[in-house]
Amino acid sequence: MRFKVDPSNIYVALLHQPVYNKSGIVVTTAITNLDLHDIARTSKTFGLGGYYVVNQMPAQRELAGRILKHWVEGFGAEYNPNRGEALGVIKVVAAIEDAKADIQARHGVPPKVVATAARRVGETVGYADMRRIFEGGGPYLVVFGTGWGLTEDFLATVDYMLEPIEGPSGYNHLSVRAASAIILDRLLGNRV
Amino acid sequence: MRFKVDPSNIYVALLHQPVYNKSGIVVTTAITNLDLHDIARTSKTFGLGGYYVVNQMPAQRELAGRILKHWVEGFGAEYNPNRGEALGVIKVVAAIEDAKADIQARHGVPPKVVATAARRVGETVGYADMRRIFEGGGPYLVVFGTGWGLTEDFLATVDYMLEPIEGPSGYNHLSVRAASAIILDRLLGNRV
Repeated sequence: MRFKVDPSNIYVALLHQPVYNKSGIVVTTAITNLDLHDIARTSKTFGLGGYYVVNQMPAQRELAGRILKHWVEGFGAEYNPNRGEALGVIKVVAAIEDAKADIQARHGVPPKVVATAARRVGETVGYADMRRIFEGGGPYLVVFGTGWGLTEDFLATVDYMLEPIEGPSGYNHLSVRAASAIILDRLLGNRV
Repeated sequence: MRFKVDPSNIYVALLHQPVYNKSGIVVTTAITNLDLHDIARTSKTFGLGGYYVVNQMPAQRELAGRILKHWVEGFGAEYNPNRGEALGVIKVVAAIEDAKADIQARHGVPPKVVATAARRVGETVGYADMRRIFEGGGPYLVVFGTGWGLTEDFLATVDYMLEPIEGPSGYNHLSVRAASAIILDRLLGNRV
């Protein structure tokens, strides 16, 4: 099976809230430069409709905006046009509701939300099943958490929970950059 | 098919030389902190035998050593033991020959070298075929380049070249952190 899903109906969001910190407290995390670059490059590779960076703190959104401007319009765009091309898929928003509204404005209907987590929380959907669901149309918004993961309250609101990525080792602390790459490849890559 | 390969026979190496820079000149690149963390976490997840960080510059190896010491023995080990557990899979060496000799010392035979590249260079092996080859035993050393990719002279010396990761978009500039995650999942993850 190769590319039966139209990936421009699939979006990703990186949520900096509501997530847990190391101690299980609900926090807003800071935006990390390489989360912008790496997940944008992965999103661009798989032809996604867009990548929403979600952070409720205005200073954090401003910082992300400055980084994007450098690569999309500034010196970076000239120095390495491939980066600008990838980072051009990013929209920085305050809340997941803003991402959903933006997708609804484009598609006429709001996206179904597909969450990912490192641990099994409630009923999960496998990757083959999710690919079949994607073939039905869209739009879909695949969300990734930062910090120590998306809160249980948030996960209770989503339409689908994907299975965690598990290796044979029992160690399940992939970076969000690695986990998002694997998940998007499993959902949208050519099957190998 | 689940985990038919013994992943402790599989190693990865991140080569900082010989790679091209943006202008096609052969250079040694600098070690990036998140390349250590992310690829170690991915290696640990998939249960690999080890992760070699290869850099011929002593000051670069010393820097990597200081970072590893912080997380494996220093304050970081206490602050976040999961990181120390992952970074403990890393060995910092000067040349790929050192990595091969280290693997030979452990397994009695040198590893076959499996290279990865963003562009199709010569004859490539698909992921299903490579998984079958892995089932035959080992050891194998899967190598990733930095900068603008491994040199053609180096690629001419390897035993296998994996197919590039390609999405539907034609854009093929994944970060090495994302590409290594996808490739190790395709080779060693549970099939989904």
